[in-house]
Amino acid sequence: MGLSATFRCFRGCDGSYPLTQAIYRCPKCDGLLTVAHDMAALAETSGEEWRRLFDRRWSATSPSGVWSKREWIAPEVPEEAIVTTGEGMTPLVSSARAAGPVRRLASELGFGELLIKQCGTTHTGSFKDLGMTVLVSVVNHAVRSGALDVRAIACASTGDTSAALAAYGAAAGLPVVVLLPRGMVSVGQLVQPLSHGARVLALETDFDGCMRVVRELAARGLVYLANSMNPLRIEGQKTVAIEIAQQLGWQAPDWIVIPSGNLGNAAALWAGFSMARDLGVIDRLPRLCIAQAENANPMYLAFQAGVRGEVPAVVARPTQASAIRIGNPVSAPRAMAALEAMGGVVEQASETELADACARADRSGLYADPHTGVAIACAKKLRARGTIGAAERVVVVSTASALKFTEFKLGYHERTLPDIDAALANAPIPLPADVDEVAKHLV
Amino acid sequence: MGLSATFRCFRGCDGSYPLTQAIYRCPKCDGLLTVAHDMAALAETSGEEWRRLFDRRWSATSPSGVWSKREWIAPEVPEEAIVTTGEGMTPLVSSARAAGPVRRLASELGFGELLIKQCGTTHTGSFKDLGMTVLVSVVNHAVRSGALDVRAIACASTGDTSAALAAYGAAAGLPVVVLLPRGMVSVGQLVQPLSHGARVLALETDFDGCMRVVRELAARGLVYLANSMNPLRIEGQKTVAIEIAQQLGWQAPDWIVIPSGNLGNAAALWAGFSMARDLGVIDRLPRLCIAQAENANPMYLAFQAGVRGEVPAVVARPTQASAIRIGNPVSAPRAMAALEAMGGVVEQASETELADACARADRSGLYADPHTGVAIACAKKLRARGTIGAAERVVVVSTASALKFTEFKLGYHERTLPDIDAALANAPIPLPADVDEVAKHLV
Repeated sequence: MGLSATFRCFRGCDGSYPLTQAIYRCPKCDGLLTVAHDMAALAETSGEEWRRLFDRRWSATSPSGVWSKREWIAPEVPEEAIVTTGEGMTPLVSSARAAGPVRRLASELGFGELLIKQCGTTHTGSFKDLGMTVLVSVVNHAVRSGALDVRAIACASTGDTSAALAAYGAAAGLPVVVLLPRGMVSVGQLVQPLSHGARVLALETDFDGCMRVVRELAARGLVYLANSMNPLRIEGQKTVAIEIAQQLGWQAPDWIVIPSGNLGNAAALWAGFSMARDLGVIDRLPRLCIAQAENANPMYLAFQAGVRGEVPAVVARPTQASAIRIGNPVSAPRAMAALEAMGGVVEQASETELADACARADRSGLYADPHTGVAIACAKKLRARGTIGAAERVVVVSTASALKFTEFKLGYHERTLPDIDAALANAPIPLPADVDEVAKHLV
Repeated sequence: MGLSATFRCFRGCDGSYPLTQAIYRCPKCDGLLTVAHDMAALAETSGEEWRRLFDRRWSATSPSGVWSKREWIAPEVPEEAIVTTGEGMTPLVSSARAAGPVRRLASELGFGELLIKQCGTTHTGSFKDLGMTVLVSVVNHAVRSGALDVRAIACASTGDTSAALAAYGAAAGLPVVVLLPRGMVSVGQLVQPLSHGARVLALETDFDGCMRVVRELAARGLVYLANSMNPLRIEGQKTVAIEIAQQLGWQAPDWIVIPSGNLGNAAALWAGFSMARDLGVIDRLPRLCIAQAENANPMYLAFQAGVRGEVPAVVARPTQASAIRIGNPVSAPRAMAALEAMGGVVEQASETELADACARADRSGLYADPHTGVAIACAKKLRARGTIGAAERVVVVSTASALKFTEFKLGYHERTLPDIDAALANAPIPLPADVDEVAKHLV
């Protein structure tokens, strides 16, 4: 088919750059880059043919959900360079089933149909796997083909990004360097990158200082930068949109709700759904809700104020949804375009609201991390306000495994979390080891 | 097709009992029960037809891997009673790929092909989901059809079993009771059942005392017992064997290695592979390795001593592989039969061996929990000894998410675990925030 993809300026400056080039911003305007596909070549295959191909590849012998859509992502990466852990093809759990973990939650919140896309049920326990498999595979291809000569892939991160980068780097046999501020990060936050053998450098500076160092190392060509402005990650993340449509029998839902801080994942949903529509695989886009924590809500404030251009930065306050505690989101321009294209809205959730949403979800049989709690709480508000209709089909993207948030769950049930009213806390009941006594306390 | 399944005595006493009956032992000999299928009715469908049916059901719109094999499991449970979280269809990650998380590990250990079946990449983070979806669905069907009248489903457990039971019970809207010894269990071990709204009763007794109370409650008909002797769980767990064969293009591997304490999961592999062979879906059984922790090794000791009947109990010592710390395994008779049928062996791993296997696996890009470490360490020994040949294809079943074992990972890398030589420990490196200095420490 002769498919190809290149980096282009997101704002539209001239010029295109190979995906194997270590380039992170437009050389002309210093703005964001995007991955541009040869849509004319892709359109030579009909929507029906794409659907059949992708359905055939969703099978027991398929190694990866992301790479089962490889023509739409990075078509020039050869099979042997692909670094995969079996990411993607995660459950989409629906309230439409008589007995499943979303049923009671949907009924309590008044949804016609609520579905949870379980992106945390994956190798490193977060949505980040979807993007990191693409970034590391492209770098692997570039290094092995001689197009790129770096000593390591690097990021300044303390969370899911460093975990995913370290795992995929280890799988590829590529060195990984993680930079973080000394004394400001617990070893617990670093247990995944340490386990994967990443070189973890604790610098005598703050987080911004780490970013300055890693950018300078990248500028000198010593490391490849795996930060969130890199559009290769969005290419992988966009498959979540295609998978959701596929799991619904090639239908777009009415609404898609995603917790978002740096806003790259919201941009990825737009990229995935719009590519699927443009290639005739689905017939329309869902409406988008970007869900933010009230304590880190620059996009919410901008949207409420009618801002449609540059998003003013805020000082992000602590939130249990720590991965979206971001005051100056890198992908704000992309997310603004996504809101425009998808009839989107921005909503926010307070600490009590996100914790209450998690507790309700857990009692329904889900196990929701705080970010998914933000998304559920925001969806609840939109439903209560009538923005989401009673008969509409709503997909919430769950971005991480709650097994990463044991302290949060414990704190909730022990009622020790600051600023959170733990109305649904549950505690062990002490009893004597007497059968009659226990029989009185069974329900 | 008129398919059916009933409880029968594992030793062969007369009598059969409906799956909806609350029965846990043979009423005649007090021995284990098994689920017996109408194999003649199942054999009316050819092996080729079963393969095609199961392949068609491994798709984007399939709600559950376990229930995609429903005719082989609990054919009389109606669709609307099935309680599912999307369990099964987990990745089988192979060293045969050029770049994946098993490649380096397999090469270091000298395997021809090593594959890891990622059963921890699932709703509650453990293999237990596979069995619990069946147990809770059958109970749900029995309660809703009026065949069973209980106030709750109950277990005496502090680990993965109580987490899975609580999640599936919540999804079904069935009350769940977890009994545990007061003061001997941390709240951290209970965070999943508490979150799912289970009633957690902390009794003034030890673990055996809790078992006595829960059995008496079951004998009085007050609760349904979800303990590990219940063969319904094995019916769900056996799908892991069928899935592995399916993911290999309907081939059995040469070896299957599983960490096992109570030995129900080893019995489940036998049940799944032998049913697939008997119905013409695969042409042979793999060889089985039961992997035990040296600190809880009754099956290993019995096997070494040539015992082929009753397994003498041992006092299990503490092990990082806490879920298989069992001295008197419930399913020992089943596991003995599995070893006999599958040309099986039993191997053991010390604390340092299991921790070293985890560390090597993690550096290869996996993230191995201690039980998977036991299995990898045992496979390594069999390979080194030549029991497993250089060209053989070996599948290791990973039974839990390592995200449940952060303390173990931290302890290893901080070198604080007792009795463990943490040769591959990795620690953050403190550095000044100076680009030239950092550049010297990139690899």
